[in-house]
Amino acid sequence: MADKAMLVVSAHSADFVWRAGGAIALHKKNGYRAKVVCLSFGERGESAKLWRKGEMTIEKVKAARREEAERAADILGAEVEFFDLGDYPLRVSDEALMRLVDVYRELQPAFVLSHSQKDPYNFDHPLAMHVAQEARIIAQAEGQNPGQKVVGAPPVYAFEPHQTEQCEWIPNTFLDITEVWETKRRAIECMAGQEHLWDYYTRVALQRGVQAKRNIGITATRDIQYAEGYQRITPTVTGDLS
Amino acid sequence: MADKAMLVVSAHSADFVWRAGGAIALHKKNGYRAKVVCLSFGERGESAKLWRKGEMTIEKVKAARREEAERAADILGAEVEFFDLGDYPLRVSDEALMRLVDVYRELQPAFVLSHSQKDPYNFDHPLAMHVAQEARIIAQAEGQNPGQKVVGAPPVYAFEPHQTEQCEWIPNTFLDITEVWETKRRAIECMAGQEHLWDYYTRVALQRGVQAKRNIGITATRDIQYAEGYQRITPTVTGDLS
Amino acid sequence: MADKAMLVVSAHSADFVWRAGGAIALHKKNGYRAKVVCLSFGERGESAKLWRKGEMTIEKVKAARREEAERAADILGAEVEFFDLGDYPLRVSDEALMRLVDVYRELQPAFVLSHSQKDPYNFDHPLAMHVAQEARIIAQAEGQNPGQKVVGAPPVYAFEPHQTEQCEWIPNTFLDITEVWETKRRAIECMAGQEHLWDYYTRVALQRGVQAKRNIGITATRDIQYAEGYQRITPTVTGDLS
Amino acid sequence: MADKAMLVVSAHSADFVWRAGGAIALHKKNGYRAKVVCLSFGERGESAKLWRKGEMTIEKVKAARREEAERAADILGAEVEFFDLGDYPLRVSDEALMRLVDVYRELQPAFVLSHSQKDPYNFDHPLAMHVAQEARIIAQAEGQNPGQKVVGAPPVYAFEPHQTEQCEWIPNTFLDITEVWETKRRAIECMAGQEHLWDYYTRVALQRGVQAKRNIGITATRDIQYAEGYQRITPTVTGDLS
Amino acid sequence: MADKAMLVVSAHSADFVWRAGGAIALHKKNGYRAKVVCLSFGERGESAKLWRKGEMTIEKVKAARREEAERAADILGAEVEFFDLGDYPLRVSDEALMRLVDVYRELQPAFVLSHSQKDPYNFDHPLAMHVAQEARIIAQAEGQNPGQKVVGAPPVYAFEPHQTEQCEWIPNTFLDITEVWETKRRAIECMAGQEHLWDYYTRVALQRGVQAKRNIGITATRDIQYAEGYQRITPTVTGDLS
Amino acid sequence: MADKAMLVVSAHSADFVWRAGGAIALHKKNGYRAKVVCLSFGERGESAKLWRKGEMTIEKVKAARREEAERAADILGAEVEFFDLGDYPLRVSDEALMRLVDVYRELQPAFVLSHSQKDPYNFDHPLAMHVAQEARIIAQAEGQNPGQKVVGAPPVYAFEPHQTEQCEWIPNTFLDITEVWETKRRAIECMAGQEHLWDYYTRVALQRGVQAKRNIGITATRDIQYAEGYQRITPTVTGDLS
Repeated sequence: MADKAMLVVSAHSADFVWRAGGAIALHKKNGYRAKVVCLSFGERGESAKLWRKGEMTIEKVKAARREEAERAADILGAEVEFFDLGDYPLRVSDEALMRLVDVYRELQPAFVLSHSQKDPYNFDHPLAMHVAQEARIIAQAEGQNPGQKVVGAPPVYAFEPHQTEQCEWIPNTFLDITEVWETKRRAIECMAGQEHLWDYYTRVALQRGVQAKRNIGITATRDIQYAEGYQRITPTVTGDLS
Repeated sequence: MADKAMLVVSAHSADFVWRAGGAIALHKKNGYRAKVVCLSFGERGESAKLWRKGEMTIEKVKAARREEAERAADILGAEVEFFDLGDYPLRVSDEALMRLVDVYRELQPAFVLSHSQKDPYNFDHPLAMHVAQEARIIAQAEGQNPGQKVVGAPPVYAFEPHQTEQCEWIPNTFLDITEVWETKRRAIECMAGQEHLWDYYTRVALQRGVQAKRNIGITATRDIQYAEGYQRITPTVTGDLS
Repeated sequence: MADKAMLVVSAHSADFVWRAGGAIALHKKNGYRAKVVCLSFGERGESAKLWRKGEMTIEKVKAARREEAERAADILGAEVEFFDLGDYPLRVSDEALMRLVDVYRELQPAFVLSHSQKDPYNFDHPLAMHVAQEARIIAQAEGQNPGQKVVGAPPVYAFEPHQTEQCEWIPNTFLDITEVWETKRRAIECMAGQEHLWDYYTRVALQRGVQAKRNIGITATRDIQYAEGYQRITPTVTGDLS
Repeated sequence: MADKAMLVVSAHSADFVWRAGGAIALHKKNGYRAKVVCLSFGERGESAKLWRKGEMTIEKVKAARREEAERAADILGAEVEFFDLGDYPLRVSDEALMRLVDVYRELQPAFVLSHSQKDPYNFDHPLAMHVAQEARIIAQAEGQNPGQKVVGAPPVYAFEPHQTEQCEWIPNTFLDITEVWETKRRAIECMAGQEHLWDYYTRVALQRGVQAKRNIGITATRDIQYAEGYQRITPTVTGDLS
Repeated sequence: MADKAMLVVSAHSADFVWRAGGAIALHKKNGYRAKVVCLSFGERGESAKLWRKGEMTIEKVKAARREEAERAADILGAEVEFFDLGDYPLRVSDEALMRLVDVYRELQPAFVLSHSQKDPYNFDHPLAMHVAQEARIIAQAEGQNPGQKVVGAPPVYAFEPHQTEQCEWIPNTFLDITEVWETKRRAIECMAGQEHLWDYYTRVALQRGVQAKRNIGITATRDIQYAEGYQRITPTVTGDLS
Repeated sequence: MADKAMLVVSAHSADFVWRAGGAIALHKKNGYRAKVVCLSFGERGESAKLWRKGEMTIEKVKAARREEAERAADILGAEVEFFDLGDYPLRVSDEALMRLVDVYRELQPAFVLSHSQKDPYNFDHPLAMHVAQEARIIAQAEGQNPGQKVVGAPPVYAFEPHQTEQCEWIPNTFLDITEVWETKRRAIECMAGQEHLWDYYTRVALQRGVQAKRNIGITATRDIQYAEGYQRITPTVTGDLS
């Protein structure tokens, strides 16, 4: 299993921590290679605390955000690559899209995580998911860099957005992250600029933990305390329905 | 795994064959106990060929349908229980509902299969699913026959309806039934009264097979020829996203 | 074409006038037999003006509503049958359902009109549509009164509810009723107890007329002034797409 | 404002506490009369802890649940009426429906709170909402107990279900309950049999508080810490859009 | 209240009149500043009558449309700014988007009105709404022109499209415009090129008036004759549910 | 009828054969002019077999695909025009959009066929439909090439995608193609590079044939063996509902 890999496509540099940090830490622990692509640093729209410090420039904010993200990725065990495409609004050129196709081809991920397909509070998020899906489709095409190994059909999941119901996001998959929770919390605490969200996302993990338990039934012996919710977008192919 | 069980709730006596015959044969082969509850025989609404023979009574039609269903269940490896509630329209009293609750409690199924939640061509079908879900909820209640072992949270799947798109049924799960296809086809051929559907459902299995292959990717080595589509209604709880 | 027939299933005794009066008058003119089934008189919930007169009884209200409906049906050219099942709430027993099945079998309608499938302002309306569909399905069953001629697959349409958007009703079919508008208006004027709705439904017909014109394009020569909107529920089978 | 009233229709005896306790305490404080109708005690399906004590009977469980609910209602400032219709499954006869109509007529509520319209985990919940809506419609009918004062069009809200996304429940209204949070928490602590939910619903209130703040904008001066989410089902009529 | 403001983002130069003219006049009367941004003049796609005059150029049409819109805005009491981005198709560059962000920052609107999120008859309309939302999000970002005052979270409403049901637009808010109806009608009559729509939108206002009355209940004393329908997209935060 | 025309907008050069080949052959036979616009050749994403041959270049693949498409169009009786815009990803400039507008103006189609509005497996497909609709809207505008004849309101249909349910595509129209099936099959067999799909789409036609029969009812005398499914996007305007 050592050669399995996972890919996270994150609109801003902190999204992968709040929303998929448990999945990264858990799969890393289980032998996966984990790679995160941050399309932007969230420098304009998700760095309010930094801007309020005064004497800030866009480059200083980006540097601070990069450092935080790298430390968090390090704790979780992920490689991180920054595309630096700008935010609020994020715009993705075809050149950037093709760079993401190359990531798919090189990584050959077993599954892909990105944002919800709708988010009325944040238009960068659905765009990131759109790009994650489009790059996956192109990476499957035989005519794209012929000779290179095409990718298979890695399942695509939408991780949890901020206001789930407004985003019409429905978690059909719960990932038990109890055994890596401490790691995720440490990664979260790297996000110095968004300290108000630390407890918010701790509560999210606890609520999803309770719900995960309910969805395996009270008769189950497995003790889940923390979980992450995901919406699987692509169908499952299986040989057993239980 | 010998004590695992599966439950199929079928509105009419042939539905479980067309729509879940592969799942039954496959899980049976893999050590599951399989139980089918037929809420009715489909004696009024799905026995056109029998009625056209002339000199028919409702009892004769029911007997013929029962015999066909029993032979098919036998081939697939399932126990079958007939509730004989009538069809077109099917009506389910609370007494019948509680009989189904008892089946859940006794069987302790690992998963449950029933009809799509909507079917504008057949109102008996969504009712069967509704009842399958309601009985599951009651079987989870501690106050129902206190002392009896409650059921956990077995996943619920909707099997494939006749005109899928009109039923707003979306297959998010494909089950590879290639290795038991011959068994399913033999069970299908028990349905003498609906011979026109034999090839129809053979083509369904072939199409779902092609789609299942596509959903694992062209790089996959597994060769799927026949599949069944299912819509999983309840969330998955897992420790691995690939 | 003289033997074609149409069926309208109306929850209350005035619904068929406001919502399908144009369709009745037009098809009648074109040689159809038109039959209306009123499941109730709308005596409790849609007769406010009568109740305010004082000295009213439920029987007096029903008699007044029946008379109005009969006069309107007469103007439109429809037969009308009252099932008198009560309103607010309407309740439909299986016996009443089977009476409606008999209507289908006798009438052999070429198409069926009833209410929208959802109506948060009026629960009698979606129930009427549900019953209209269920009776149609049973009337198709060979085991229902074997020997009787079964019905084919008459298309089902939902006519226009009062607050269309709240009812999630979408008109995919516009019927040009310009040539029978005067007849419809006269039928509307039979509804003495709901005079405030006369102009409301005249405006509805004008708006739908404008929309119908837009949907054939400004290059079309046909001059539509009044129309009725319908949501076709069942698929069309055709040999020409224009 | 002393004569304004609010109505809560609760499927089981604890639902109104978790889901609408803040709304009750807040409106009570602001001069409303608050009335809760509990259709059942939740004696079979939501009293697991009591049943596990052993030596239990259905009557003992109902008595314990009633006592808890009465104490909680007392703390919140609500009158509570128990219809005792049974749970898992809840069944509502037309007689019970008419009893609820009488409550509407007597109370003349300014708004109504009940469950989400869908809940795959609990079929009693959507039924309670259905009944709350149907009773409201009947209470508006002039022919229902003619002479009695009919009700107007009180807005209907769905309060928060357990697994919101699975229930397709979307909060379009946030109620700031910061000033009555301590009262709600005390009412919650009356629910001795469901202690595991105390912290769960405290976290719900904190998350909704964060979201409410976000929806008034970071420039707002109002400090919201706790909130309840509601889905308003009926339209607003207003003279100002801000 | 003198410093409150409202913003209307209109795809073509007449949209704000038909669809939000009442809201503008009413809020203006109540002390709001009202600003309209017209992204285009509708010169190609909504000026049929002008083009049929012959001897027309795109500049002449734009001038005529501008003059009409300015007169209408003047009657309603609104400032109007033309972005002149072209229509059929409308295209919005990031530069134009940022110009709209500046409008938000300068105006600090209490609420925003724009088109429905879907419109199969007119792709310029949903684009205008998309841009209105995206500009609002960017105007909230601290990193956009740091030091400038960011905007809060002004509610966003979709005003009424031409064929509402096809646009999946659902009015969850009715605005009573009875007291400013005459003003709106005068503004409508400035639209010389679309005289066929004058009566159409008068009927729309009457229908929405009837519906608004129904949604406050027949027991209400407020007499509503004309109304505008809006779909509120963003949640309400409140301290009272009635 | 000789001057009627139909338009097919196909994302890749083979789509029109699998998905609309029957409609083309049938309408051609009935006197229509049929025109197909292929936005790309599908050279990168739908030519796997060609690429695997080795020694391939993009130009060779395009030439091979063009030849296949021309032969198929010839058999079906259609003119075909290639826009050569590239695939995986397809990108449509405003210049290309206007070229399609010109096709509309010249052809004056009686109806238009294109892809489903959603397709998670293929983002080129929904883009093609979007462009087909946007060009239609622009072709209706009086200000587009003033003096040229504008188009009316030709109905728009979405033809069948590969995995229908995932695309949320619902066939509301079945076209009986029994009489031209042999022609369609011959056109299909021109697609040498996708031989694995020949039988797949033959089975699709058989399944739709069975469903079409069911939707006219078992009492109908018309014998349908092969059909194509379409989702009509635009409303029907009619004078008869049967």
